[in-house]
Amino acid sequence: MIQRAAARALDRFGHRALQYGNVAGPGPLLEWLTARIGHQEGRAPEPDELLITGGISAGLDLLLTTHTQPGDTVLVESPTYHLAVRILQDHRLNLVAVPVDGQGLDVENLARVVSDLQRDGAPPRALYTVPTFNNPTGVCLISQRRRGLLELAAEQQILVIEDDVYRELGYDAPSPPPLWSEDRHGSVVRLGSFSKSLAPGLRLGWMTARAEVVGRLVQSGVLDSSGGVNHFTAVAVFQVCESGDYDAHVRRLRQAYRVRRDALLLGLRDRLPEGCEFEAPGGGYFVWLRLPSGLDGEALLSHAEASGTSYIPGARFHLGPFERERIRLAFSLHSPARLEEAAERLGEAIRSFQRGSSPQPPAGG
Amino acid sequence: MIQRAAARALDRFGHRALQYGNVAGPGPLLEWLTARIGHQEGRAPEPDELLITGGISAGLDLLLTTHTQPGDTVLVESPTYHLAVRILQDHRLNLVAVPVDGQGLDVENLARVVSDLQRDGAPPRALYTVPTFNNPTGVCLISQRRRGLLELAAEQQILVIEDDVYRELGYDAPSPPPLWSEDRHGSVVRLGSFSKSLAPGLRLGWMTARAEVVGRLVQSGVLDSSGGVNHFTAVAVFQVCESGDYDAHVRRLRQAYRVRRDALLLGLRDRLPEGCEFEAPGGGYFVWLRLPSGLDGEALLSHAEASGTSYIPGARFHLGPFERERIRLAFSLHSPARLEEAAERLGEAIRSFQRGSSPQPPAGG
Repeated sequence: MIQRAAARALDRFGHRALQYGNVAGPGPLLEWLTARIGHQEGRAPEPDELLITGGISAGLDLLLTTHTQPGDTVLVESPTYHLAVRILQDHRLNLVAVPVDGQGLDVENLARVVSDLQRDGAPPRALYTVPTFNNPTGVCLISQRRRGLLELAAEQQILVIEDDVYRELGYDAPSPPPLWSEDRHGSVVRLGSFSKSLAPGLRLGWMTARAEVVGRLVQSGVLDSSGGVNHFTAVAVFQVCESGDYDAHVRRLRQAYRVRRDALLLGLRDRLPEGCEFEAPGGGYFVWLRLPSGLDGEALLSHAEASGTSYIPGARFHLGPFERERIRLAFSLHSPARLEEAAERLGEAIRSFQRGSSPQPPAGG
Repeated sequence: MIQRAAARALDRFGHRALQYGNVAGPGPLLEWLTARIGHQEGRAPEPDELLITGGISAGLDLLLTTHTQPGDTVLVESPTYHLAVRILQDHRLNLVAVPVDGQGLDVENLARVVSDLQRDGAPPRALYTVPTFNNPTGVCLISQRRRGLLELAAEQQILVIEDDVYRELGYDAPSPPPLWSEDRHGSVVRLGSFSKSLAPGLRLGWMTARAEVVGRLVQSGVLDSSGGVNHFTAVAVFQVCESGDYDAHVRRLRQAYRVRRDALLLGLRDRLPEGCEFEAPGGGYFVWLRLPSGLDGEALLSHAEASGTSYIPGARFHLGPFERERIRLAFSLHSPARLEEAAERLGEAIRSFQRGSSPQPPAGG
């Protein structure tokens, strides 16, 4: 699909596909995205509210360069996507963790944190959040809290950086609209991506935000001198989108990942010992598992790997206090059969760890 | 060529070409670059001294995020590449201009500037320089000054950011080795690029620097979470390089640009009025023209454009004091016939401007 799209884009746009492009991104891709966002989310960005990025990480990086100063206070959910935290830390920001629960970011608690920070002379400049199919928890922020968050952000002038990477990957129902589409105050910068819906190696995404924010990025030296972001890839991706291949691919992905999720959940329900707990995620890549009380996810890891399965211990996603029993399981890369097998091996690893005995290496390898 | 390379890269590497890649860049491209740099420059980078970037702008941006703080003093040549200045300004650096002359950066003057800055408590953290086929002057820094610059940088712990974008485009003789290859103290970060030698829309370049600098970038959140830079493009570019297409293309470019440069120079020699001065650039894209004394390049511009030619006034490349008679002419994009015609129109524009009469619109359009 990508091979065909790259070839056709070069046939169609010729040398223009390889030259410096429009700084905000190729016009045809911007138009296609505008129509699709309007159709899916009930709000289409204005032309000056949309920008092509080199994926969410690159978009976040450029946003931080242009909109923050070292030492600025930035709020992050805890747990949250651990590599986004690394990007925030590279910008030497003052990170403050805000707890989440089974309904996402705890907005009442957030309001208290904000008010404490203001009292201490460090009012938060921004919040980084993954409100839809969170990484690592899989949770979608409930709609009442979404409204509360938008009100708080507008009142306190907090820039809400919405990492919307899993939007296309809802398995049971349409994904909730992004915070951006319900924001009437220009507080939200929504970062979208083709990484999970097409391919991460393309390094292509987009941003919707108020014109002032997008304009600042369009006027940045790095985008101006680059002629936009990854222009060649962007015209190839436009070809994938315009041909209808993109929509067909996303439908196939959703179906395949739903089957994988269900296989893992079935395996976990059948094979894990008493005391393990998890919610079925409605989308995304992850199951956020609670191990039996007192069992440390970090300590279990080598045991699990010796049993032929793996995960990321929850501690790695936290800035603040954390439950050491949490671990993140990822299901997107493996076949249903392998995922059921993985659940079985994890169950065995937990039981042997609880017994204090050595892990059993898998029979099959 | 790019179409064939993209198709072959996908045939050869399959889904791995579209997945997250190695953070420093695809192994085969790193190996190819290592061998080529070693062959051409007499010094091959060690594996931990080489990194693939999203072009020079993106490499510079990431280097500044990880190695500077707002308020740090950074030295820039004046004149210099105006969009690099914008990137430096986006990082809120304290920019200090250092004059150049017909032999490039004036290193003795630079030493005085550095010593003054140290006395004032603002020792320079870095220097941004285009020592080979400078933009806008076309000048190559002479080798004696290169040695002096490296000594000064080592002594004063100044990070030398070497923008090496025009390296492949030497028309008369092999390009001088980069500062990086002669640097024994790890002062130099050399930024290379495929933008001028292949295509700017690919957004791909590389960096050679001491292992500590490269390592800091490899460990940055943005590269780690991206799985390296533009992985799909990078494997396609590897295919172009490995097949021999890259070398053949660069030879063709050099030949074509040499003819263009010579056509422009011939036109300028024949058609410009008394008092215009310029040196023939040995490579790169630009002729740095001095207009007759007292003639303002900004004021002449609308006159020249009405005559059907254009340029960038020299003032735009300067941070410090400047000669308003300087203008930058670019020859890479136009045919020899058009360039001769452009020189003729420029000559007419200057003459009519000097007479104080209205410009003559071109006959042919």
